[in-house]
Amino acid sequence: MEREKALSLVKEQITEHRYNHTLGVVETAVALAQRYGADVKKAELAAIFHDYAKFRPKEEMAAIIKQQNMDPQLLAFHSELWHAPAGAYLVAKEAGIEDEAILDAIRFHTSGRVGMTQLEKIVYVADYIEPGRHFPGVEEVRELADKDLDAALIQALKNTIQFLMKKNQPVYPDTFHTYNDLTMKKGDTN
Amino acid sequence: MEREKALSLVKEQITEHRYNHTLGVVETAVALAQRYGADVKKAELAAIFHDYAKFRPKEEMAAIIKQQNMDPQLLAFHSELWHAPAGAYLVAKEAGIEDEAILDAIRFHTSGRVGMTQLEKIVYVADYIEPGRHFPGVEEVRELADKDLDAALIQALKNTIQFLMKKNQPVYPDTFHTYNDLTMKKGDTN
Repeated sequence: MEREKALSLVKEQITEHRYNHTLGVVETAVALAQRYGADVKKAELAAIFHDYAKFRPKEEMAAIIKQQNMDPQLLAFHSELWHAPAGAYLVAKEAGIEDEAILDAIRFHTSGRVGMTQLEKIVYVADYIEPGRHFPGVEEVRELADKDLDAALIQALKNTIQFLMKKNQPVYPDTFHTYNDLTMKKGDTN
Repeated sequence: MEREKALSLVKEQITEHRYNHTLGVVETAVALAQRYGADVKKAELAAIFHDYAKFRPKEEMAAIIKQQNMDPQLLAFHSELWHAPAGAYLVAKEAGIEDEAILDAIRFHTSGRVGMTQLEKIVYVADYIEPGRHFPGVEEVRELADKDLDAALIQALKNTIQFLMKKNQPVYPDTFHTYNDLTMKKGDTN
């Protein structure tokens, strides 16, 4: 799908604020894909569509999670997590994106997963560091992303876990498992 | 088993420094059991024996974990975790402790587990806050332990996860799951 067509489909689905965030994620994901030798076109499309379902009603997302036999645990965790897997489903169904690598990058852009692909890492990190993001810790991840994608991802996961723990909120297990997966792999090579 | 007999068995197994720590855990666990209406005698015995295997050779602990079909994942995580499940096994085998509630409190005193019993919580928290412990965050857990055992346990788990993440070390999944289990239960009642 062409960039402009994809952007126009997304623009109908989300607020202007979120659309501007999306443009930042696209720019960042493309730069990271160039930097790390990933497929630039796939990174661009995954970034364009990553928040496609962000403003769908919770009831619709919950129904998709149930009907599509996604992890039922999701429903016990914060609904902020739901737009990623529900989004992957809707982007396939409504926008006709069939590339599983792109859909997985959308699917796992909030939770992470064990064994993330490079494309998934790029969209996750781009979502975290795009130029419109301003929160404690983001600059450290930005600097890491320029040198070591995995280190940036680990730092983003640590910040996310820490943020949730400060609020006494549970942490979706895949996020923990992603952190463990990446730190254990780093440990092997250090 | 009588307190003095149990203490003499443990004293043979651990350093003087660790024995003094154990006495602090015993004192604290007994006080918490009285405070929260748990079985004081079981809390005392579990505390006495909680570090029984602390100085066993890693090879011996790893062999026990394999032969007794304990979670094989343990071996991929820090060996600091091993003395708890290996200890429960050795305390049963060598000291003749048969009470499963006591053995479980020993078994889960480092990792925690989903659905911890009150006795398990008491030994976990006592091990964290006994008077000989001095590290950042311990005072907050001490104060919480006087009012709300679960809140103290959650804070101790958060500190532990945070400590490991600062060192870029993986976190044993049961510790994450225990944090989630307790925060989700708290959420139900708040």
